[in-house]
This record gives sequence, C-alpha cells and structure tokens, in this order.
Amino acid sequence: MNYLRMEGEQLPAFKKINSPLDLKKLTLAEMNELAGEIRQQLIESVSRSGGHLAANLGVVELSIALHYVYDTPHDKIIWDVGHQSYVHKILTGRGDRMSTLRQYGGISGFPKSEESPYDAFNTGHSSTSISAALGMALARDVQDQHYSVIAVTGDGALTGGMTYEALNHAGNAGLDLTVILNDNEMSISKNVGAMSSYLNRLRTDPSYARTKDEIEGVLSRIPGIGPNIARAAGRFKDTVKYLMVPGIWFEELGFTYIGPVNGHNLEELITVLGNVRKMKGPVLVHVITQKGRGYQPALNDPDLFHGIGPFDINTGKTDRRLLPTYTEIFGQFMVDKGREDDRVAAITAAMASGTGLKNFALKFPQRFFDVGICEQHAVTMAAGMAKAGLKPVVCIYSTFLQRAYDQILHDVALQNLPVIFAIDRAGLVGEDGPTHHGVFDLAYLRSIPNFTIMAPADENEFLDMLNTAFTINGPTALRYPRGIGAGVEIEPQRRILEIGKSQTLREGKDLGIVAIGRSVEMARDLTTILAEYGIEATLLNARFVKPLDADAITALARKSSRLVTIEDNCLQGGFGSAVVELLADYNINADVLRLGIPDEFIEQGKAEILFQYLNLDPESMVETIIDHWPDLIPNATWELRKIGEN
Amino acid sequence: MNYLRMEGEQLPAFKKINSPLDLKKLTLAEMNELAGEIRQQLIESVSRSGGHLAANLGVVELSIALHYVYDTPHDKIIWDVGHQSYVHKILTGRGDRMSTLRQYGGISGFPKSEESPYDAFNTGHSSTSISAALGMALARDVQDQHYSVIAVTGDGALTGGMTYEALNHAGNAGLDLTVILNDNEMSISKNVGAMSSYLNRLRTDPSYARTKDEIEGVLSRIPGIGPNIARAAGRFKDTVKYLMVPGIWFEELGFTYIGPVNGHNLEELITVLGNVRKMKGPVLVHVITQKGRGYQPALNDPDLFHGIGPFDINTGKTDRRLLPTYTEIFGQFMVDKGREDDRVAAITAAMASGTGLKNFALKFPQRFFDVGICEQHAVTMAAGMAKAGLKPVVCIYSTFLQRAYDQILHDVALQNLPVIFAIDRAGLVGEDGPTHHGVFDLAYLRSIPNFTIMAPADENEFLDMLNTAFTINGPTALRYPRGIGAGVEIEPQRRILEIGKSQTLREGKDLGIVAIGRSVEMARDLTTILAEYGIEATLLNARFVKPLDADAITALARKSSRLVTIEDNCLQGGFGSAVVELLADYNINADVLRLGIPDEFIEQGKAEILFQYLNLDPESMVETIIDHWPDLIPNATWELRKIGEN
Repeated sequence: MNYLRMEGEQLPAFKKINSPLDLKKLTLAEMNELAGEIRQQLIESVSRSGGHLAANLGVVELSIALHYVYDTPHDKIIWDVGHQSYVHKILTGRGDRMSTLRQYGGISGFPKSEESPYDAFNTGHSSTSISAALGMALARDVQDQHYSVIAVTGDGALTGGMTYEALNHAGNAGLDLTVILNDNEMSISKNVGAMSSYLNRLRTDPSYARTKDEIEGVLSRIPGIGPNIARAAGRFKDTVKYLMVPGIWFEELGFTYIGPVNGHNLEELITVLGNVRKMKGPVLVHVITQKGRGYQPALNDPDLFHGIGPFDINTGKTDRRLLPTYTEIFGQFMVDKGREDDRVAAITAAMASGTGLKNFALKFPQRFFDVGICEQHAVTMAAGMAKAGLKPVVCIYSTFLQRAYDQILHDVALQNLPVIFAIDRAGLVGEDGPTHHGVFDLAYLRSIPNFTIMAPADENEFLDMLNTAFTINGPTALRYPRGIGAGVEIEPQRRILEIGKSQTLREGKDLGIVAIGRSVEMARDLTTILAEYGIEATLLNARFVKPLDADAITALARKSSRLVTIEDNCLQGGFGSAVVELLADYNINADVLRLGIPDEFIEQGKAEILFQYLNLDPESMVETIIDHWPDLIPNATWELRKIGEN
Repeated sequence: MNYLRMEGEQLPAFKKINSPLDLKKLTLAEMNELAGEIRQQLIESVSRSGGHLAANLGVVELSIALHYVYDTPHDKIIWDVGHQSYVHKILTGRGDRMSTLRQYGGISGFPKSEESPYDAFNTGHSSTSISAALGMALARDVQDQHYSVIAVTGDGALTGGMTYEALNHAGNAGLDLTVILNDNEMSISKNVGAMSSYLNRLRTDPSYARTKDEIEGVLSRIPGIGPNIARAAGRFKDTVKYLMVPGIWFEELGFTYIGPVNGHNLEELITVLGNVRKMKGPVLVHVITQKGRGYQPALNDPDLFHGIGPFDINTGKTDRRLLPTYTEIFGQFMVDKGREDDRVAAITAAMASGTGLKNFALKFPQRFFDVGICEQHAVTMAAGMAKAGLKPVVCIYSTFLQRAYDQILHDVALQNLPVIFAIDRAGLVGEDGPTHHGVFDLAYLRSIPNFTIMAPADENEFLDMLNTAFTINGPTALRYPRGIGAGVEIEPQRRILEIGKSQTLREGKDLGIVAIGRSVEMARDLTTILAEYGIEATLLNARFVKPLDADAITALARKSSRLVTIEDNCLQGGFGSAVVELLADYNINADVLRLGIPDEFIEQGKAEILFQYLNLDPESMVETIIDHWPDLIPNATWELRKIGEN
C-alpha cells in the first residue's frame, strides 16, 4: 500500500475544517471520509517530523466525535498526557501548521493554551487530566457558570495514582464531569497491573460488557428472583447493582460507567457522547480504540510507533544511527550485570523500551518490573527491594522522576538505601519540549543528603560509572542525555571510579573550566576554539555533582581565579551553584561564570538548535567567556564579532 | 475516671513482655489484660511527651494479634505512616523507653530500623507501606526466601494514589502479601472521597459485609437462579462473583478480601490472621478499629488527639499558648479573604485542622476542598481552578508538599498559573523528626521558573505577604514555621509588599547579615550579642527568596565584603546558595558564610534543642562568625570562650 498522496489529489472534507464549527456541517459519511484523510495527513506529517503517531491514529474518530458533539472551546476538553492531541489540533484550525509539529518555533506536540483557546489545559506528564478537569468543574460551579468539562485519559494513565486520587474525589463530589477512558490496551509499553486485566474483562467478557438495559431484561425474565434474593430492600438494591452494572469498580467510586463503546464507529460515538453530554454527575465513558489504526507498520509495532523519529512512509523504517545511544549502552550493561549478579533487579515505570530494558526483561523476567505509569510506587518498591537484599536499578526519565521526588528523599535517601537511579533523557530532550526537558534533576537531587550523583562525559565513562554505582552503599544517581554520546570507542575493561574525583582533560593558565556530563564534550570544543585565540584553559570533567571534587576545583579556582562552570541543568541550584557554594565554603574569591539552563522553561526544538538559542553551543560560549573577561584577548574584537555572526 | 496509675500498683502482664516471644506465652485473658495496661501506658506516656495518641489507642489489639500470630522480626510488618507504631514498640522491647518518645536522643515516634530489627521499614509519610512491602515480597521470592510481609495501612492512606499504584501491581503480581486495612473511619481529618463511602458501606451494610459462606447459602436457597441467569458458564461465574464477594473493588484489583473484622476482638483477630497467614496470593484484611479507643477525651475529639502536645491526663486539656501560631493567623486571614473575595478557594490534603482551615471550611464550604491524602491531586486540581477563574490557595505542610513537586512544576509553574502555596511547618518541625522536617522547600522550589517565594520574619509580615500573594499573577509560595512567631502585635492595616524587596533592620559597618523567615528573629538576637562585642552588623530581612533583592544584597556585599546568610533550610541549593549565585553573577568577591541546615537528615527533638545541636542558635552563630573572621575582635578570646561554655 502506498501512503503517499498522489500529486494534485484534493482533500475536500479536510480542507473545509478550519474550526469545529465547520465539522458540525458535515454528514456522517463526510466525517468518515474526513477521518481517513486525517489519518493520511497524520502519517505524512509524523513521517517527516517524528512524533507520537500510533496514539493519534487511534483517536481520529473520538476527536471528531468530541468536537462534533461538544461546543468547544466553551466546553473544555483536557487531553491526558496530550501526545494524542494532533487530531484535535487539526480540527481546531492548526491543520496547515502540522508540518511545523514539534519543531523549534512550530506547533507543540502537546496541548498548549498559549497556542489555541481549544487547548483548555496544558499536559505532557501522565494522569493529570482528571484532577485539572475536576478543578475546572469545581471552579465553574463556584462561579455559577455552565459548560461541560471532559477529561480524555488512557488506560496507561489509569495506572497512575493521581488518576485514582481524582476519580475518588470526583466520584464523591458528584458534580457534572465526563471522563473518557480511551482504552487502547497499552500505554507506552504493554500495561501491567490488575486494572489492565479488569479492563480486558470489561472489553471481552459479555457478562461484564453488557448494558444496563440488557441486564434489566435478563433480570425481568427470571421468575421470582427479586423477592427471593431481596430479603431486605437494601440488599436487593445492592445485589441488583452487582448484577446490573458493568464497570462496578468505577461505579463504587461514584461514577456512572458507560461502555464499552467502539471508538472507531463514529455513529456510535456521536450517539453515546450526545447522551453523555446531557447526563448529570460524574460519568466515565469506556471507549475502545486501536493504537496505530489505519497504518499497518504502526499496528505491527505500536511500541516503536508510540513516539518515533522521522520514518519512511512506505516501509515504516527509521534511519539507523551509526553510533549507539546511551540508552542502548545502558541496556547492554544491564544484561551483562544481570548475568553476573542475580540480585540485580531493574524497575521501570512504563519505559521499558525507552530506557533500554527490553533485553534485560527477556533474559531476567523474574527480576524485571514494569509497574506502569507509577514513578512513586516504583521508587518506594525499589527501596523495599534494597532493604530486603536486592540491588535495584530504577530506570526512569529525568522529567518523570520528578514525580517521585518525595519517595526518593523519604523512602530511599532517609534510610540510605543502595538504590541506583539510572536517569535517562536528562538535560534538554529536544522536540518534546518544556514538559519533558530533564533540566531540574541535579538541583532537586543534590539537596538530598546521602546521595552520590554522577554524569558521564562519554560512553566509556558511563559504563565505568554504572560499574561504580554498584559499589556504593547508598542512593546513587546517574544522569545521561537522550540519544548518542561523544562517540568514543568502548574499552572492554571496566573500572571503578574514585568517588568524588574529577578528571583533568587539559591544562592551561588563563582560566579554568569545570564541566559535567554532556557539557564536557562541548567544553572540549570550546577550549579548542579558545586556544585558536591564544587562550589556554584548564578543563576539568567533574564526573561527580555530589560529592564535588573539592580539592581539584578549589585548586583550580585558586590558580586561575577565573572559573567557568558548564552544565545542561538549570542554573538555580544546579551544578554551577554547587561549585559557587564550595568556593564560598572554602573562602576562595574567584570570578565564576556559570553557564547552563537559565531560569525559564525552554521551548521545543532539536537539542542543537536549543543549545544555540541558549548560547550554550561552543562558539557562543566562547563569545560569552570573552565578553565576560575581555582582557583575555584585548585585540581580538574583530575575530570575535565574526564568530558571533556565523 | 482517673487514668493515673496508683502508687505501687503492679503491671504483671505488661512487665512480662520484653519481646513478642513473651507475648506468645500469654492466654487470651492475659492478652486482653495486657491490652488494657498498654492503653494506660500510652495515655500516660503521650500525656507527657505529646504524640499520636488516638491512632495508637485504636491498634492495641491489632498490634498484639499481629505479633502473636506472626514470627517477627523474621516476618516483616510495615506500618504505613507509622505514627500508630507505639504499641508495636512497647511489644518489641521498647516499653521502658516510652518516656523518651519523640524527644531528642529518645525513641522515634515512627518506625525506625536503626532503632530495632522489628521496624522492618522506616515510614512517616502516608501510603508507602504497600509499595515497600511488595518490594520486599518480590525480593524474598527472587532470593527464594520464606517469610510473611504485612503492610498495615489506614483508610486515610488508601486515599493516596501510591496505595492504589501498589495494590494494582501487587494484585496482578499474585505473590504472597498481606495488607491490613486498619479502617478507623478517619485519617488526620474526616475522610473524603468515594472510597470512604465505599468502606462505610462495607462496614455497615449487611449485603456488602456478609461472608462468602452466607451468600452461597442465600444462592442455594433460590430455586433455579443459577441456570436462569447463567446462559453461559462465564456469565454465571461473574454474576455469582458479584453476588458473592463483598469488597469487590479490592477483588477486581486481584486481592482476596477478608472482612470486615472487629479490630478490638482479640480472639477474632487472632483467628482471622492465623488463617490469613496460611493463605496464598495477595490478601486484604479489612479491620475495623476505633480511634481513641479506651480514652474518653480522645473519643470525644479524635481530631485533637490525632497528634497532640502534652496534656492533662484527667481532663484531656492542653496548655493554652499566649501567642497565636502562624497557623491560626493564616486561618483568620483566609476567613477574612474568603469574605472579601468569593473567588478565593482553599485546598488541603487531610490537613484542614493542621493548616488552620477549620473556620474557612465552616464559613465557605463550597470553596473549601479537603481532597484526602492526595497532595498530587490537590495541586493539579488547584491549577485547574486557577485556569478557570478561581484564586486557589493550596495549604500543605512543607514535608508533604514534596510529594507534589512534579505537579507544582509541570501543572502550575509551566502554565504560570496564579496558585498560592501556603506552606506550613517549614523548617525544623521538632519532635516528628527527620521524616517531617520541612527543610528542602526553598531548594526544590527556587529552581522552578516563574515562582515567587517568600518567608515572613514575623506575624505582621506574614499577613502582608499573604495579602501580597493575591496580587501576583503567577505561582507564589509562602513558607512559615510550625508554632508561634516572633510575638509582635498585629497591625490592623495590611500592606502590599514590593516584590523582591528586602528590609534593612539594622546598619553596621563590620559585616552584613542576610536572613530569611524565622531566622530573622535569631539574626536580630545575634546582632545584639555581636554589638556587645563591639561588632556592628548590617541586618537585612530578605523577605523574598525569589526574586532576591539583588540591589540590596550586592550593595551590602560590596560595602562590607563579609556576608553571613541564615536560613532554616538545607544549605545545598537553599537560600544562601541563591545568594552566592547572585554574587557570582554580579562578579562580587565577598567572603560568604552560609548558616543553615547541613547536608544530613536532622533528628527529632524540640526545635530549640535542634537549633543548638546545629549551632544555629544566636550564641552559637556568634561564635561561628567570630571563628570565621577572628580579626573582628582580635582581643576577645576569653569572652568568646565563655559564650561557648554557657
């Protein structure tokens, strides 16, 4: 099948849609045609920009039905996680900008109220939508306003504790609120947990899935059942309730459960949502969708097509990188380590593939734990494991680990337990943008006692640090960036690094540079450029954020009195902050220039572009340094200007 | 009734118990006698030391039964939250140290493995026990070991999302694990949420509460019901399951539900737990207890006796303070503000009384939201409210707000929403100890963009800051300590403070001191002592941690070149860290001495004692300052030594 549109081919239905108002003029047949065209548009756009394809292919009809039935943006739709909002964006006047999706300056891959009034609440992390929707519904009622609030959440998000907290509250509050449970039978990875089995039973077992009408029919055909069971009126009511109500789990939480509904049948969706819109109180509509619907490569491998880079539209193949990513190196290390030591366990929160644990999971299924989108539970469970003799490695992206901050502090660090945190996607992550940049971890982790914190400069050091982590009898964090590293050849022999010891990469008299993690590579380039201007810098690879190498850093500061720190973490409380604290504690007066992520949320875009925008690419950093200390090369004004213009 | 023991009266059963082994020698009658004696001991101890009385009175029989049935410490009991572990401590050899409870150097008010091998896992914050227990059970199975793991959790903890995450995982994992749901019908405050109603139905409605045997009996007495309903075998099974199984909510999550069980009937408890111990797979035992059981004042006001200071054992009355606490001042402010502006809403997470919101809740029930122990949901719900036009104030203790770090960053700050965080119990909280000190908030909040962060030096400033917070169009945090403030008279007129502007309290040429929040009062005393030694200090009350008053602080540093920062927050990334960052950014070389909480977890004890232990009382700080800059008074060695000795 050829997914590319023919030259000159028209998109009549699609082109008519500039806002949901246009949608309401279409017939059912036209809307179905529109659904097909949107799928084509999605496949084309994402094949070029990368993004979350499979989830969006699954919600084409649901998005159309929601905007057809509800009066948006007066009614508020909140998309949980939000990476399934592309269709919504197309339907709300952003179809012509889909080619800029996830690019620097383009439209976001997530709902963003700054972008459109149709994006009622910004999302990115999982399981927030019902809390936000309930907040809005409560605010609406307090202010005596009238509109519908709809949270669209997934079966993956349902594993997150926040969803339960919000359901429990909303079910009791009793106000008008609709939750659409978009059940595509998997979140990022295959769902785990009893809830997943429960939903599966609701989907497939007719005795769970039948409607109330059907059950009332069944009941009425049984002679004498009512009086016989119902010795007391109360007991009768409850017994009937159990007999009648599928989705009792949600009903007990105070929701009216409707479903399951076929999420690819527009007519059924529109009918059901039309009725739901008129219902009072909290309602949960269980909609069954198929992730990757309409594109065979995505159906074949929904995991790969969850979030994907640019791919060939006909084959579904992505470009093969020449160098291994940090994630892949980590995955291989874990397999080796798991073989070497049968107390090593890996824990992740619906990021098995993303954190490189697929092979570990295959080889050591008994020691691999994907808990669902439950960072909190993952971390405290790991603490329990460490307490009971295992060597747990918690593998979570930097941005998602934020959700377990309290568990890291209260359950791991306070008991000084040897849990290793393998923090992937640290620093700027690129196209996923501000909700996903992992630029806070060094700040929030280094204020916690008992922690050892490392960040590797290259692949070899990464492996040595992982190796070292297993020798530390307390909480240890390793943070490393998304994607490939410096590209060094990996040595076969593993070393154990000395804790809190930096590495001197270059010696020079004019200034000192202390870099950490990914920034070390940029700092190398920076020192090369500086040398071209006759400026000789000493370069330290800090390796450890905690404990800092006090000896080396203070010696360097004393020697050069000009110190630059470089990190891809927020400057407030980050690595450079630790360095200035250290110098203050040692009473050393040095000029310190801290380079890193400034005090703002950073937009989306390729990491290289973002580093340039932030003046954190080597050339820009050279300029900043010479601007800061112009006496380094008093006569080089012209050349410097030239760098700035390039 | 007189709760004081008579002179010379013996405690035969009680004195026999040095470990659970001794317990196993007792008859049922002796154990019941023991229960009474333990209650007496609890009332006496807590009346002197303060602590969590009501919860412990509720679990006397449950604690006895658990240690009677299980083989501790080989079998592991994990107490959720842990403030109900006093009886457990008495039974495991710590009865004679109950007089040191919660005191500096004494036994902890929470389980602590450093204290006893019977404390299998340290707790303090809510809803962690099932995650930790599951981690242990998984570790046990991986290592092919054999012991029971029991998590004892409350109905309050069940509102927390982590509990659901863990239940969902454990129910699916299917391994041997016991959860005791200690249902005393309230957590810290009266429980909210649909789960609470559900538990109430299980407790009170015979059609929910009946046992499986009973239901099977009912079923068998209905002629023809099986064949008629059960058109298909599968449908029959499920229908019967709904009819049969009380606690279906837990059953759907994969747990075998047992209950409800009378938590004050030792014989029943021992029988049930004895059977549960032999059961396979995950089991949830629903135990009904009465908070405050056996002590009328606690039964009358379980909210007051949840966590209480020393009290009169016969009347249950606590000492009345002469000065209002920050909490009380906040509570009055909220009532006034709620009257003035009907868009003001207050949100708390089971801390309505603790955060001073009782009157607001009474006066504005429609705008008061206690969500249960759900800090995550509370914060994101507040974000939704702010987005939809309300002015939400989130009232959560510093230590518990840690659990909502991601929601603060991702749902509030990223959208720059005007949510006000009223952070009570910031800094050292005293007797609750390391799990509860609120010493990280300045570090974890100030690295988040868009935030304004304030801390008041006294009661008047607190009210002005609250007033100011409502004028800020973005996220705002106010952090203030537990208990009373400086004791200043409250002026009737409220002001709006200039954002990021400090206040100069004293001028002196010899050094500069910048203090924040509670530390300002101590800094005042410190400057008075310094003046006695002829050292004149300038004292700034910073007021704002973010944005810092760059003008005033840099001017002070330039003038004196000796700067002291004082805070009751962790030094790593805290307020002083922000000051040294600022000076680095402004290229100012000043000696900075940062005083605050060092990089360690701080033990329990009265705040005054802890400040002394940390050398953060005014006298110790004077010593530290003069040690740091001995040239301030070269000839005063003798006097200084004298200060040190007193």
